[in-house]
Amino acid sequence: MKLSKKNLDQRLNHVYDAIIVGGGAGGLSAAIYLQRYRLSCLVIEKGRGRSFWMQDVTNYLGFSPHTSGRDLLQKGQDHVLSLEGDFLRGYVEDVQDEGETFAVKVKVGKEDSSYPVFRTKYLIAASGIIDNLPKLDNMQNVYDYAGYNLHVCMICDGYEMRDKKCGLFVASEGAINTAFVLNWFTPYITVFTQGLFSVGEEMRQKLQEYGFPLVETPIQRFLGHDHEMTGVELTDGSTVDLETGLVSMGSHYHNEYLQAIDLNWKGGNLVTDSMCRTSHPRIFALGDLKEGINQVSIAVADGTLAATAIWREIRRAAPPRRWEEHLATQEAVL
Amino acid sequence: MKLSKKNLDQRLNHVYDAIIVGGGAGGLSAAIYLQRYRLSCLVIEKGRGRSFWMQDVTNYLGFSPHTSGRDLLQKGQDHVLSLEGDFLRGYVEDVQDEGETFAVKVKVGKEDSSYPVFRTKYLIAASGIIDNLPKLDNMQNVYDYAGYNLHVCMICDGYEMRDKKCGLFVASEGAINTAFVLNWFTPYITVFTQGLFSVGEEMRQKLQEYGFPLVETPIQRFLGHDHEMTGVELTDGSTVDLETGLVSMGSHYHNEYLQAIDLNWKGGNLVTDSMCRTSHPRIFALGDLKEGINQVSIAVADGTLAATAIWREIRRAAPPRRWEEHLATQEAVL
Repeated sequence: MKLSKKNLDQRLNHVYDAIIVGGGAGGLSAAIYLQRYRLSCLVIEKGRGRSFWMQDVTNYLGFSPHTSGRDLLQKGQDHVLSLEGDFLRGYVEDVQDEGETFAVKVKVGKEDSSYPVFRTKYLIAASGIIDNLPKLDNMQNVYDYAGYNLHVCMICDGYEMRDKKCGLFVASEGAINTAFVLNWFTPYITVFTQGLFSVGEEMRQKLQEYGFPLVETPIQRFLGHDHEMTGVELTDGSTVDLETGLVSMGSHYHNEYLQAIDLNWKGGNLVTDSMCRTSHPRIFALGDLKEGINQVSIAVADGTLAATAIWREIRRAAPPRRWEEHLATQEAVL
Repeated sequence: MKLSKKNLDQRLNHVYDAIIVGGGAGGLSAAIYLQRYRLSCLVIEKGRGRSFWMQDVTNYLGFSPHTSGRDLLQKGQDHVLSLEGDFLRGYVEDVQDEGETFAVKVKVGKEDSSYPVFRTKYLIAASGIIDNLPKLDNMQNVYDYAGYNLHVCMICDGYEMRDKKCGLFVASEGAINTAFVLNWFTPYITVFTQGLFSVGEEMRQKLQEYGFPLVETPIQRFLGHDHEMTGVELTDGSTVDLETGLVSMGSHYHNEYLQAIDLNWKGGNLVTDSMCRTSHPRIFALGDLKEGINQVSIAVADGTLAATAIWREIRRAAPPRRWEEHLATQEAVL
């Protein structure tokens, strides 16, 4: 059921089989499988993750290419609730390993917050990433285009950028190398650094060899209308025409709640085995939070794997279920 | 485009980046990604694979639980065609490794067949499995219920069988062990061997301990109406009431076309690396054909992985794309 401040006390004495931090594609897939494995789970979703922003999920089998991430998530949430899974809007602040269980502390409500602690046998970390976007005075101007024709993922949307005049927005010299992959899709690339760092001579030369202009003047604002970005205006008043853009400014992970637990990380990613199990036997990690390709399809499969591994363990430890009435009949006959 | 006998000669001189054997969930996902990576691919689908039979895809994120496998596949096929991927209804008879390319021989049309040979750089084996079903004189009687409440996959449909009177249909003693997993979902299990093999004393005792009746008399027919199986009639005229059933009689793989190629197998499954690459560097395997869990979500992710690995290789070997006009302008300025 949908939990909120009003009814969450009903679950404070319950020990879940799994608590899933993050209600994105991976977390919801895990919850669907867990509930169908007859296990009990709670999905805790802070809102506004990466897939929430996607206007078009363009490469997930079975969806028309104009389905939004928001629609996908809503369908998954409804599915989980229809299977009697629990869903809570809240922010996971801390997880403590208590041995047999984890204590999961959640902040619920932005104002007048309550801080319930839920208990679970297994923890699934599916809290994903948040893409760094260009920082402008008026962030609404960025949000107007991000997820529309200002993209954050080349694998997802390289195709949408094909042979278009594309701005590549970066925050480090290393990220400029994205241009030399992006050119598979389009050679009409202009690199914007916003003057956030200095570009070395070698990189300048390489860009010149490829014919990719380098713009170091900060951006004043994105130009466009109806969520279609058509260029940028720089702080010196000049403008650059564009047809699309790719933001490659890194991302940050929502993983602070795992700080108290000793886990094997590789950068911001959790290292997992083939069933998405981390170095802690009762913690799994899915999707963008773990190593690998950041794609909806991968996260959904990760949810399948983690849920199946958890089910196997719980099932094997459970007492066998016999057909009692039939046993009674057998005995009566004997 | 959709290929048929009439237009396939248009592609006989083309070298595809990838030919995908099998238009199930994995193959279609691969094709969507490949086309979006600006690569050219052909999906060859023989028809009537496992997912085609599923009446309800119940655990794939974003789908309402009453979407049929057929609907999922049709949506995927439309998606591939909209991305200008090629799709052919046909049966892959043989694959020959020619070094740089593979020659893929296809039988098109059941009558008056033609046998075109297509060429491709990479091969994706996504031809899946076909479940063995009970063999009755009137197979239509089996097809009337298979995929409805006569299931073939416990992970997919264990939930649908929960606490129901369930027939478990097996063809070997080993498969009887399925009962001791299935009892997680329901303890009301009757095992049907159809007299296909003899059951050892130890297994008989175990079944008795669990209260699971063992029926060795062959089945005459399934009883029921409107695709809802309600029991079986045995050849001795007696009947057994059931509410659902699980067929666990093994499956066979459509993999004969790979016979001429030396590959690493584990039973009927191809061994692959984390990107679904087989022991042959230009052959990938997806979904049920490779090791792992047979689930739509896994196959879809496999398609993502294989397509991405192929794209990376082709892209890295390709000449760099420069912004030629801009280079010309630069030179003019100098």
